[in-house]
Formats: sequence, C-alpha cells, structure tokens
Amino acid sequence: MIAETNFKPGLEGVVAAETRLSSVDGEAGELIIAGFPLEELAPNAAFEEMVYLLWHDRLPDAAELAVFRNRMAAARGLPPAALDLLRAAARDAAPAMDALRMAAGALTGGDDHEADAVRLVACFPTIVAAYRRLLNGQMPLEPRPDLGHAANYLYMLVGETPDQTRTRALETYLNTVVDHGLNASTFAARVIISTGSDMVSAVVGALGALKGPLHGGAPGPALNLVFEIGEAANAETVLRRRLEAGERLMGFGHRVYKVRDPRADVLAAAAEKLFQAGGDRALYELARAVENTALRLLEEYKPGRRLQTNVEFYTALVLHGLGLPAELFTPTFAISRAAGWTAHAFEQIAAGRIIRPQSAYTGTKTRRWTPLAAR
Amino acid sequence: MIAETNFKPGLEGVVAAETRLSSVDGEAGELIIAGFPLEELAPNAAFEEMVYLLWHDRLPDAAELAVFRNRMAAARGLPPAALDLLRAAARDAAPAMDALRMAAGALTGGDDHEADAVRLVACFPTIVAAYRRLLNGQMPLEPRPDLGHAANYLYMLVGETPDQTRTRALETYLNTVVDHGLNASTFAARVIISTGSDMVSAVVGALGALKGPLHGGAPGPALNLVFEIGEAANAETVLRRRLEAGERLMGFGHRVYKVRDPRADVLAAAAEKLFQAGGDRALYELARAVENTALRLLEEYKPGRRLQTNVEFYTALVLHGLGLPAELFTPTFAISRAAGWTAHAFEQIAAGRIIRPQSAYTGTKTRRWTPLAAR
Repeated sequence: MIAETNFKPGLEGVVAAETRLSSVDGEAGELIIAGFPLEELAPNAAFEEMVYLLWHDRLPDAAELAVFRNRMAAARGLPPAALDLLRAAARDAAPAMDALRMAAGALTGGDDHEADAVRLVACFPTIVAAYRRLLNGQMPLEPRPDLGHAANYLYMLVGETPDQTRTRALETYLNTVVDHGLNASTFAARVIISTGSDMVSAVVGALGALKGPLHGGAPGPALNLVFEIGEAANAETVLRRRLEAGERLMGFGHRVYKVRDPRADVLAAAAEKLFQAGGDRALYELARAVENTALRLLEEYKPGRRLQTNVEFYTALVLHGLGLPAELFTPTFAISRAAGWTAHAFEQIAAGRIIRPQSAYTGTKTRRWTPLAAR
Repeated sequence: MIAETNFKPGLEGVVAAETRLSSVDGEAGELIIAGFPLEELAPNAAFEEMVYLLWHDRLPDAAELAVFRNRMAAARGLPPAALDLLRAAARDAAPAMDALRMAAGALTGGDDHEADAVRLVACFPTIVAAYRRLLNGQMPLEPRPDLGHAANYLYMLVGETPDQTRTRALETYLNTVVDHGLNASTFAARVIISTGSDMVSAVVGALGALKGPLHGGAPGPALNLVFEIGEAANAETVLRRRLEAGERLMGFGHRVYKVRDPRADVLAAAAEKLFQAGGDRALYELARAVENTALRLLEEYKPGRRLQTNVEFYTALVLHGLGLPAELFTPTFAISRAAGWTAHAFEQIAAGRIIRPQSAYTGTKTRRWTPLAAR
C-alpha cells in the first residue's frame, strides 16, 4: 500500500531524470544547452550542428558535419501515405499540430533509433510546409537537398531560397528553443521510450503533449498585443487599461525565470538583425516600444513580481519577420524541439529503466455485482 | 537548483496520481476495478458496461446501457484516410501495434473529450480487424451495429457471428485487463492530457508506450512454452531442463503479485468454459498440466520466491481459444486498455494540473563556441 503522503501532485519538485542536455536556472536567468551558455551557442551554430551536439555531446568537425547534413537532407522526404493523410487533414481543415502528429505518426519506428531520429527531425519541416501549402490550395514542394535544414524549411513554405540573414534568424530561433529541461512533452517522450518502445512512438507522444495550452510555447497572443496597440503612442494607454482590468500581458512573465529569460535576449538580438536587413522595420520599433512600456508599467502595477519579457514575445517577432503566420508558430517550435525530444529519448534508452510511478486508490472496494434487470 | 537527492529513478514509489479506477494489492492478490473486486465484475459485465462504469463510476441502468451501446456502435467506422494508412502499412508488413497507432492517430481530437473517447474505444477493434484482414489479403469487413463491442470484433476478424460462449470469453478477457493502476502507458496518457491536449493525442501516446517490451502484456511466449512441450508427459522434462539452465518460465511470476494474480484465476475460469464448449480441449488440458508441473518445479527450484501463474499464461490460452493469432494478443490488450486510458484521462482533466517533474543536470556549463574551421 502506498502512503498518501507520497502523492506529488503534478510531480512538482520530483526529479525524474538526469540529463546533460540542458540546465535551466530561473533565478540566475541562465540556460545551458549541452554545456554551452545559450548566448554562446544559439547565434552561431547551424541547426544541424545543434542536433549533432545534442545527440553526441560534442560539436562535429567539418567532415562529420558534412556527412550529417547529407544524412539529414536525404531523410526529408515523406512516404506517400503521410502525404495522403495531410491531404485528408487539409480537406477537414485540421489544426497544423494535429496534421503534424498524424503525418509523423505514419512513420514506422524500429530498432535503429538513430535512423528513426534522423528521419523524424529531418521530415518535420517537410510535413509542416507541405500541410501549410495544402491548406492554401498549393502543391507541396519537394525538399531541396542543397539547402540546410532551416533554409530548406523556408524554401518549402514559399518556394523562394532565403538569404543568409533570414536563414540565420531561423537557425537562431530553432537553436534557442531546442531544449528546456524536463517539460511535459519531453517527459512524455521519455516515459514512452522507457518501455523499450521506438523513437516514432516517443516523438508522436511528445507532439501530443506539446499541443496542450498548458504546455507553453504558443507565441501568437504576444504578437496580437503589439498589433492591437498599433503605434507606439498608444502603448501606454492600452497597456495601462489592461493592467487596470487585472489582465495578464501576454509575452511577459515566466513560471521559472525570475530575471530576464536568456532566450528573450538571444531572440531580441536575432530580431534586430533580421528587421535591420529588411522587412517591417516599423513593426520592430513598435514591438520594442511596447516592451519598454510594458516593463515600466509592470514594475508600477506589480512591484517585486519581477515580470520580464519572455521567450514568446520575441519568438513571435522573429517568426513573423520570417513571414510565418501565427498558425505555424507552434509547429515551428516542434521542428526545433524534435531534436531535444530525440536527444532525451537517447538518454532514456541509455538509462535503461522504465518510468513507472504509482497511483493512490481513492475509491471504495466493496461494490457487488447487480444484474442489469435489478438496477 | 534541484538537490540530487530528489532524483527518483523510474519514479519508483512516487505517487503521481490519485484514482478511483483500480487498486492493485500484490501482497493480497487483490485487484479492485472501480470499486468491484475483479472476480465479481469481469465474468459478468458486458464490455460496454465496463466502459460506462469506468467513465461514470457506476453501472448503467438498462436504458443508459442501450443508449451507450448504440453510441459506441455508431462510432465504429474508420475515416477513409485511416483505411488508406492501414493499406499502406500492410504493404510494408508493419507490426500490428504500429498500424493501430497510425490509424488511431489519423483521428483529430478536439474539445469534446467524451465524443473522442467514444470514437477511440469504439474504433480500436475496427482498426485491428481491418489490418489483420489486409495483411491476409482480405477485404476489411464493415462493423455490424447489431452486435456488441466484443462480438463485433470477433465478427470483423473472420466474418462469422460468434456464439454466446465465445463472446463471453472475450468480454471477460477485456474486462480483466481494462485497467491496472498507473502502468507506463496509462501514465503517458495522463502526462499528455495534463497539458490540456486532446484525447486522441493521449491515447496515441499510450499506444506507443504499450508497444515497448518492458511494458508487459505480450502473452505470446507463454503459449509457445505450452506448444513446445506438446504433451503433458513431456512437461516435467522440458521445464526441468529450462530451470536447470537458469531460464525464466514465461507465464509465471509477476513484479507486483506475490500471491496468485487474481486476473489469472478469472481467465482460467473463462478458459475452462470456453474450451468445454468446444475447440481444442486437449490444448486446454495440456496447459493445465504444464501449469501444475511448472508451479511444482518453481517451488522446488526457487523456494520462497512465490512465483505464481500470471495473467499472460491464461490470456494466451483464452485468446488462442478464440482463434486469435499471437500477433493480435497485444493489439487486443490495447482494445481493452483503451477504456482504462480514456478513463484515466478524464480523471486527469478533472485534476486540472500539468504533470511536469524536473531533471537534474549532470553536464558541464562552461563550454565556449569554437568555429567549425577551428575544430
């Protein structure tokens, strides 16, 4: 029998895994990815370097990177059944996260976990881009093996080869959100693979968890606030009205980070470079003005709460600057996080232990069968 | 920062959920399902009554049961995209558990959790039977709404209406394995739905976990032992040779149950009735002889270990007696457990709290970026 005192609602504070993949220190505002401070790694690494680093615990040399890029590029295609499924989903106008879960789930996982992980990470952008085009009544584009992972995703969405600035901005975003401790989707992947199951099953489970609104990672609303404010001169009025009404400001505050979220800094710098090189410079200036006003007013209305700009605020700005519609924000997050999920799955396989907590029974034990006629 | 001492490998002994669905007491050999001792419930309830009980915490009256049966029967059909996926999987000869995960995942989950749960539980037999027939080069059969859940599954496999004895045997099996505390697949479902995700995502994640060999619920090997022994006179020789070689006897011993697994008793009685009514009576007698010899020899070779016949031994016998091939044993387990997964998901939704444990970082924190050319 389990003592009731062992019940840990939400498993809060319970450590369920050891990992070398990321370390989140909310008090210090520090995020370490595979040994590197985020600021050191995210703006520099190609996404393929990041995936290699997570899986192998070191950066590849030039020859290893070339081999790995080719391997990833060769694995981008979708089986016809997955494409058929996306066409059917588009006819039903299914949400993009459901379409991604369906098509990823159409793969068969096996004993070669690394081959499966390559295929999953490689084909996520193909699925997301193909589904976007099908929803728009366009034909999906074939992946281009001459482009890297990030550049090819942008290409498959719109049919234009992105320049270096846009590719870099997307890579910095993908690197920034690739892993973040043991969030619910990563934990779901670890639970599933811990039974000896396969990589596809683990990643599909993680996708299902990522979809949930409590998971976090839905940056759309942060940008809506900026659009609603419209011009910098309105920021104070609109934000003050919201705060007076007791509303939460989307894009500010984080459960863990009590100082500035290091991911926000990295993405703010990426946004600045992206918008400097072109695009809606006025929107960028507006977003900065909204941020500054929001931080000032949050300190006024909620002193001591230490509410800082969070990752979602600048995620929305960067992805919008790259031309992505809000419906693709969470699927694009998944394109990045697939690397973290698979890396955690490799760790869990190495740990070699099933994750199986217990439940406490709260019901009666003495019911007796009554035939239907006597009920 | 997390103290290393909080690390609970495999979350062993940690209580992650409260439930009124089932209580497992391994020392007492007791399994309670929704307030009923298993022995009281499993041989009596129709599977639809069991599902209703798990979801509503009481047995339905006659009118409620009629409505619920009709609702389940109306939800058995598969969307064309799911059937296409099964055809493609059959061409690749994918394992039946992968095919089930794919086709279940082709459904779109939404906000109406109960409608999704009905659809999932209702269509699992349709998927499993359709895939079996496609693998055999046969056309899938349409579900028959005049038959109950269990009878319709047997019908869809072979095209013959099963008699009452066979239907009862399958219902008793499905009832017996419908829920069993917080196993890894059930836990995966709870983690996924705890983010606010949907029922389809939760059940697809659970299917992925159930597939893993560490999960348990793969009864094929237990029956192989019986077939290998071939006749009762060989039992002692074969079993003694295995035990002398230090091999484990499949079908005996359980991690939790230290006295006889109550599920084994219920299924032994179901097997006896099934084989009395027809079928391979000699196989049943052989299995009983193997069991008796195995229990005697286990006490001789492993005194005090209390190794008893487990649920898999009689599962294999019952499902084989129903004409199911070993490849369908785990998918048929899933047909039952889908009711438990969805019931746990309802409980988790009501609990309203995300399941999010923490990880302990074991890596370095001081790596510095080295450009590719310098590596």
